Amino acid sequence: MSNSKKIQTNQPSTNQQWGGRFSEATDAFVASFTASIHFDHRLYRHDINGSIAHAKMLTKVGILTAAESDSIITGLQEIADEIASGKIEWSIALEDIHMNIEARLTDKIGIAGKKLHTGRSRNDQVATDIRLYLRDQINAILFAITRVQQALTELACQEANTIMPGFTHLQTAQPVTFGHHLMAWYEMLERDYSRLEDCQRRMNQCPLGAAALAGTTYPIDRHYTAQALNFDQPTGNSLDSVSDRDFAIEFTAAASIIMMHLSRMSEELIIWTSAQFNFIDLPDRFCTGSSIMPQKKNPDVPELIRGKTGRVYGHLNALLTLMKAQPLAYNKDNQEDKEPLFDTVDTLLGCLRAYGDMIPAIRANRDIMCEAARKGFATATDLADYLVKKGVAFRDAHEIVGQSVAYALKKQQDLSELSLEELQQFSTVITSDVYNVLTLEGSVSARNHFGGTAPSQVIEATNRAQNNLSKRLATLSEVE
Amino acid sequence: MSNSKKIQTNQPSTNQQWGGRFSEATDAFVASFTASIHFDHRLYRHDINGSIAHAKMLTKVGILTAAESDSIITGLQEIADEIASGKIEWSIALEDIHMNIEARLTDKIGIAGKKLHTGRSRNDQVATDIRLYLRDQINAILFAITRVQQALTELACQEANTIMPGFTHLQTAQPVTFGHHLMAWYEMLERDYSRLEDCQRRMNQCPLGAAALAGTTYPIDRHYTAQALNFDQPTGNSLDSVSDRDFAIEFTAAASIIMMHLSRMSEELIIWTSAQFNFIDLPDRFCTGSSIMPQKKNPDVPELIRGKTGRVYGHLNALLTLMKAQPLAYNKDNQEDKEPLFDTVDTLLGCLRAYGDMIPAIRANRDIMCEAARKGFATATDLADYLVKKGVAFRDAHEIVGQSVAYALKKQQDLSELSLEELQQFSTVITSDVYNVLTLEGSVSARNHFGGTAPSQVIEATNRAQNNLSKRLATLSEVE
Amino acid sequence: MSNSKKIQTNQPSTNQQWGGRFSEATDAFVASFTASIHFDHRLYRHDINGSIAHAKMLTKVGILTAAESDSIITGLQEIADEIASGKIEWSIALEDIHMNIEARLTDKIGIAGKKLHTGRSRNDQVATDIRLYLRDQINAILFAITRVQQALTELACQEANTIMPGFTHLQTAQPVTFGHHLMAWYEMLERDYSRLEDCQRRMNQCPLGAAALAGTTYPIDRHYTAQALNFDQPTGNSLDSVSDRDFAIEFTAAASIIMMHLSRMSEELIIWTSAQFNFIDLPDRFCTGSSIMPQKKNPDVPELIRGKTGRVYGHLNALLTLMKAQPLAYNKDNQEDKEPLFDTVDTLLGCLRAYGDMIPAIRANRDIMCEAARKGFATATDLADYLVKKGVAFRDAHEIVGQSVAYALKKQQDLSELSLEELQQFSTVITSDVYNVLTLEGSVSARNHFGGTAPSQVIEATNRAQNNLSKRLATLSEVE
Amino acid sequence: MSNSKKIQTNQPSTNQQWGGRFSEATDAFVASFTASIHFDHRLYRHDINGSIAHAKMLTKVGILTAAESDSIITGLQEIADEIASGKIEWSIALEDIHMNIEARLTDKIGIAGKKLHTGRSRNDQVATDIRLYLRDQINAILFAITRVQQALTELACQEANTIMPGFTHLQTAQPVTFGHHLMAWYEMLERDYSRLEDCQRRMNQCPLGAAALAGTTYPIDRHYTAQALNFDQPTGNSLDSVSDRDFAIEFTAAASIIMMHLSRMSEELIIWTSAQFNFIDLPDRFCTGSSIMPQKKNPDVPELIRGKTGRVYGHLNALLTLMKAQPLAYNKDNQEDKEPLFDTVDTLLGCLRAYGDMIPAIRANRDIMCEAARKGFATATDLADYLVKKGVAFRDAHEIVGQSVAYALKKQQDLSELSLEELQQFSTVITSDVYNVLTLEGSVSARNHFGGTAPSQVIEATNRAQNNLSKRLATLSEVE
Repeated sequence: MSNSKKIQTNQPSTNQQWGGRFSEATDAFVASFTASIHFDHRLYRHDINGSIAHAKMLTKVGILTAAESDSIITGLQEIADEIASGKIEWSIALEDIHMNIEARLTDKIGIAGKKLHTGRSRNDQVATDIRLYLRDQINAILFAITRVQQALTELACQEANTIMPGFTHLQTAQPVTFGHHLMAWYEMLERDYSRLEDCQRRMNQCPLGAAALAGTTYPIDRHYTAQALNFDQPTGNSLDSVSDRDFAIEFTAAASIIMMHLSRMSEELIIWTSAQFNFIDLPDRFCTGSSIMPQKKNPDVPELIRGKTGRVYGHLNALLTLMKAQPLAYNKDNQEDKEPLFDTVDTLLGCLRAYGDMIPAIRANRDIMCEAARKGFATATDLADYLVKKGVAFRDAHEIVGQSVAYALKKQQDLSELSLEELQQFSTVITSDVYNVLTLEGSVSARNHFGGTAPSQVIEATNRAQNNLSKRLATLSEVE
Repeated sequence: MSNSKKIQTNQPSTNQQWGGRFSEATDAFVASFTASIHFDHRLYRHDINGSIAHAKMLTKVGILTAAESDSIITGLQEIADEIASGKIEWSIALEDIHMNIEARLTDKIGIAGKKLHTGRSRNDQVATDIRLYLRDQINAILFAITRVQQALTELACQEANTIMPGFTHLQTAQPVTFGHHLMAWYEMLERDYSRLEDCQRRMNQCPLGAAALAGTTYPIDRHYTAQALNFDQPTGNSLDSVSDRDFAIEFTAAASIIMMHLSRMSEELIIWTSAQFNFIDLPDRFCTGSSIMPQKKNPDVPELIRGKTGRVYGHLNALLTLMKAQPLAYNKDNQEDKEPLFDTVDTLLGCLRAYGDMIPAIRANRDIMCEAARKGFATATDLADYLVKKGVAFRDAHEIVGQSVAYALKKQQDLSELSLEELQQFSTVITSDVYNVLTLEGSVSARNHFGGTAPSQVIEATNRAQNNLSKRLATLSEVE
Repeated sequence: MSNSKKIQTNQPSTNQQWGGRFSEATDAFVASFTASIHFDHRLYRHDINGSIAHAKMLTKVGILTAAESDSIITGLQEIADEIASGKIEWSIALEDIHMNIEARLTDKIGIAGKKLHTGRSRNDQVATDIRLYLRDQINAILFAITRVQQALTELACQEANTIMPGFTHLQTAQPVTFGHHLMAWYEMLERDYSRLEDCQRRMNQCPLGAAALAGTTYPIDRHYTAQALNFDQPTGNSLDSVSDRDFAIEFTAAASIIMMHLSRMSEELIIWTSAQFNFIDLPDRFCTGSSIMPQKKNPDVPELIRGKTGRVYGHLNALLTLMKAQPLAYNKDNQEDKEPLFDTVDTLLGCLRAYGDMIPAIRANRDIMCEAARKGFATATDLADYLVKKGVAFRDAHEIVGQSVAYALKKQQDLSELSLEELQQFSTVITSDVYNVLTLEGSVSARNHFGGTAPSQVIEATNRAQNNLSKRLATLSEVE
Repeated sequence: MSNSKKIQTNQPSTNQQWGGRFSEATDAFVASFTASIHFDHRLYRHDINGSIAHAKMLTKVGILTAAESDSIITGLQEIADEIASGKIEWSIALEDIHMNIEARLTDKIGIAGKKLHTGRSRNDQVATDIRLYLRDQINAILFAITRVQQALTELACQEANTIMPGFTHLQTAQPVTFGHHLMAWYEMLERDYSRLEDCQRRMNQCPLGAAALAGTTYPIDRHYTAQALNFDQPTGNSLDSVSDRDFAIEFTAAASIIMMHLSRMSEELIIWTSAQFNFIDLPDRFCTGSSIMPQKKNPDVPELIRGKTGRVYGHLNALLTLMKAQPLAYNKDNQEDKEPLFDTVDTLLGCLRAYGDMIPAIRANRDIMCEAARKGFATATDLADYLVKKGVAFRDAHEIVGQSVAYALKKQQDLSELSLEELQQFSTVITSDVYNVLTLEGSVSARNHFGGTAPSQVIEATNRAQNNLSKRLATLSEVE
């Protein structure tokens, strides 16, 4: 990296930010081991926004003059630009993004820069930064989820009449429509969306003013700062404010469930693209090949996403372990909250982006799906239901169909291929109308109730979904 | 166990419930290995309530006659009593609670019993049972959290003026009030409460009618059943309904955060009851002794709760692993969802019960706490703030105080014990009014803003909390 | 439970085992919450064996008389029988298995029973018990792994010539033999075996004598006790001895890897028994049916085992969390080490038992496997290798084959079905001998090096394995 | 980053490495999403070493000419230098380190470069690289552990006579020596060392030759390559070779236990440096200060290490999740194995380095430690033992001491401060020699058996340790 033209902030002579209590400089390895600037620089924009709100509040309550405030705000805005254009060289001696920015500010504007930290501490500052960051990222993720859901809804609509085997235990159970299956994925993501909204709402409280842990002796106005930063309200207890990392755990838990869902969808895509299933095709641009086997076309994208599930589960585990048995209030341990959080955000956005691109490109091999459903006695339940409607008790009907299936298995035929005489061996209530219920189309259409697989229900479900998504997008756009 | 008087349900001759497709009996070890009756019998009441609602719906839509329905409902109610009084002997051959109850019903009422399963499957049945179970247990947990919060609020009110050292990095940072510290715990639990409410609301949808995976061909009324069981609505997609275990994961994630909070509170109680801290006493009845060291009085209850954190984290991890990459719809893997969930519920209820009992019994050693705060330069920040108010820039004030602390450390005195001349060595703006800000009481009272540690703020916080808890209890009582 | 005939041990009047320091009885809920007898009674035999060794050592060094020792040993042996025949009623007031046994001993033999605890503490006692327990259970698990490996080796031998598609990315890659695939499973288990051996060896040190944490003032002989209990040596540091739970974590980590392997094997069995793959059949006795779909035959056993993976991962997570940041030496938290350990042992033994039964029952559908390999251009790599052997650089050969595959895909033919003219379009070095390398048999046999898939290599591998297993069984039998 | 002078490798026109089967270029986002070059470039040296060994083997068996081999080896060595000096610009289009290096080689040496990949695949190549990498890193970690153990042994030797309270339940239990406590840490690390050795030995098998999954049709010599790369032998099954990631899981499990140990040591350092304990001092260079509280000196290094425990636990969890239920052989999921592994290595090395530096700098506040031991009835057990030696049964002695403690507590005196008459109230066997056993020095010295806390035992333990470490260092040096 060529740093020749970068801005070098004045370095602290010796642990400048901790003051004169220390008789010995920090060990160089320790300085590097405990610094966070190599990852927390990502928070710079939120740190600056938080500082601007804090400066305005200090001005309002008379701690800063208007001139000092103007100078601070202009300085911070310039620093934001310097950072955005890659001009600032980060200093490990300045430990973190907060001190790097503050030191640069003092270089630029002099003594007013030193006043900015009045009435706050890095403990409440970082708690605020990370909430601002996460609040924004959740919005981005909500958009990304919505995009996948839109793609699913459109594809489900197209495939509302496509018949495939519905599986339990990866064994053919009953025929379903492919559109219905896709709408199951939609529902999973709908809960994921809702969980993230709850998480975002719960975390939307402003810790600024908690200072190191106990609040401050300055006459600060915490409601002002909270409002300036679009928080619902200030946090209720200063000790809790600097020690709470619930929001990060709740977020990674919600993220883990999303990844769990994507892993299930990925597993199905992988199975469906196998030569043996061949239910769908993924276009070449979402697949990769082999360095040794020229014929290979591998569903790398769903495989990689399935693999990334572990990564996010791991981050959740890391954060829960981190917070276990920590005494209040702030401990250095908490510096470890950021990397798992950042990587969770990046992973989620990447995987959702990939799914948003990939879903519309799925091509259903409709004939193969339908043919697969035709095998495996998918309509056996329909025969049982037929018998029940003719007055046979459910458990007895189940037994009769079981015997019919065993018979057909031996003959290597489907139930619909047995003759009426053959079927009547097992129950005399069977008449020729039985063949209506043994067709796939009849079976699927008959499951015609709220949440059922009948094509008409799938169309209704996609309509409900599209209304929901339209309303949501209107709200989300306001947010941005 | 003496089973001599227990009711033995008629056993299926050979895999009766799966019908005639099987040519070979299940291996005895396999039967026992795959059975769930030894743990899922806990769901019996919810299973029976679900079946009663289902029977009523089948009657409403004309599938059962009123006589059949009456017979079923009476039979099920009798079975509930039989189970409650320990009269039923569970059968492994009947696999699970659903088949055990259904077989017993058929023993009692004959053929009508066999009709109950019309239009449903064990897949939607168990999904319903477990939601009913968890919904109830969440109510119990919400009550238990509230009880701990009440105890905290009362103790915080009593200890609103008790001064103790506020710690960061387990080093004395600034003086706080013990009441303020306790209210930090209250806030943690408040978020926990809110998370469980969200979880409960999100899971409150009825899967009944999803049947095996695709819905059913009977003209069922899913909205009727949902309403009868107090669900907000039926679930939207049958495939998703039988494969979704999000609610269990979301619940264990919320439970993990609660345990994380209890582990932090426990860590503090353990440290505070050490001879070195001696901030509080726990009464003998919450402690245990030693088989070898007669003087020991160990804070076993908080230690055990801290240890149980791992248990609940482990269950969360188990469920996330369980669901990773499972293809839709139902797979046998899902049988493994119950034990982690049940144990999480039991653990939470036990730990919260213990905390609810223990908090009111905490006795603060107020003098020791106060004396501890007097050491460790807890008011150094107040001196810095004093300097800033006299016009010194914050970063410069910090440096001045650092030098004063280094000087006092060498003299083994507190800042308040230095003479005015000594203090003035470090800054000439210091005058005799400095001693007002160097007292603990002055320091604490000055942090007098929303969320701060001043006694008046603590009282306000406890008032807000008590209002909140009163309103909540009114609502919770309605639920019960 | 009918306890009418059970032996009731004399109850401690009030916290008898902790002595007179306590002025208040333990709270009843606390007593039950902190007791461990409901799960640690499982250790009774190891507790008694440890006590007998301890009594003999006390006698050897002159602390007990021979008469006292005889009385203690006879008493303990009788108690072992009482427990084995279910005659003892466990007492919660006596907390744990150690106090339950000791109290019963004193009931039986009087004052000599009170002398048994001389020179030890429950802290070193439980550390010893659990190592004795785990050492035994690991032996049982080693046997169970060996049994699965034997079954695999036999089946692999039978199926050494059975050709199936080898998959990467669940896409056909190259033909392999089914025997070779099974031997991959063997290798996984071989490493698992080796990990458990290391774990067992590392934990085989005797903590007895560490007493509460610091050792004891009695002239004990720790080497004597260690030897009597078949430990390699006494542990080296008393503080570490009572606080160490590494062996439990190492064991659950090894168990987690075993479950990971079983989950992979299970995933393959589930996919292979799907109608679409249909590579193997599992007999009915390892499958279960459906309560609603009479045709279903579900591979419940592998599914359930796949699901149980989460359970064991969860226990590992629980133990790691438990021990995180615990100060030395013993803390009550550690009571939580037992349930995860016990359940891990039970789960492993159950799953390995199931696999040991199931593997020999697998029936390969050889024709279907072979036919599947014939599709999917499994021999494309062989064509590339052919070209390289004719002088084409590997990367160029890869390109040529890629084009051939694209061409064949369009024609919906396999490479071996293309005419020589067609193949020569892509490279003029191709001559009629190319068809030799395009057959499955040729492809498989050509991978004839150590570790390769050629049938002769598989036979060699099974021979090596059988030798290994024979030697091992000789050693294991000695252990028992 | 200024890339102006970097070497740009020729880019593949369109998915060049997969050949002509693909009709569509990879989507740009997909290319970036699935590439691994941004993290796997770290393996470059091991990749090149593996390739050199492979080239030599190909030459030995006649597949490459000597000239080709020379050209390849020289080219690879030059590339290693280019990479080491930062001259190569990584290409995302070339996906990973393997293709980046191979493409650069072909740029340099032409067609011979294309022949290097003969008889191998990226699947066995990466499996080899990562083992070579981890084998080296484990050596570095073994050194780092040894360095911490040396520091512990030296400090323990110095502090063999320093008396401190031994804690159980964080309550004073019995007096121990500080040296004994430090040697408990030594023992933990000794097991950690041993676990890593086992892991390293088990993974030391060479996967090269497994090719994509089935081995290769070239007459390769796998034993030659294994030996050239210092592996014990080639792996036994090609399918297993490319799918196995056990070694990574076993390593992160061992690493998790190490971090667990460091978290326990850190917890103790943090508690001991609190003002309330004040048992030790850490020099300023291992601490950091506060941006707001000028008096603070925070034990940041142990806190941060305690926090990093979660990170490593998380990586273990990630890898276990990753491998759960993956069908054989290689799947793209496995690309996710590297980042958790790399970060685990980095974290371990950093934390061990910090401990190696910090331990020698610990200063024991011996007077404070001793004074703390004097309180809390630390010698109560000694009184009980005294009574037993006078003929009182252990359980009765325990009761007597309990009453004495209760009495002394009320009088706020230590047991040694009670008069003989007072003590005799509780037992008439007490005579004036009791005061010998009630001193701390007497108590500690009396625990004089293998593994006990007596100073002479601590000295013996440190001697044993130093012998062990000397022998080990001789061996480790050979390795390097």
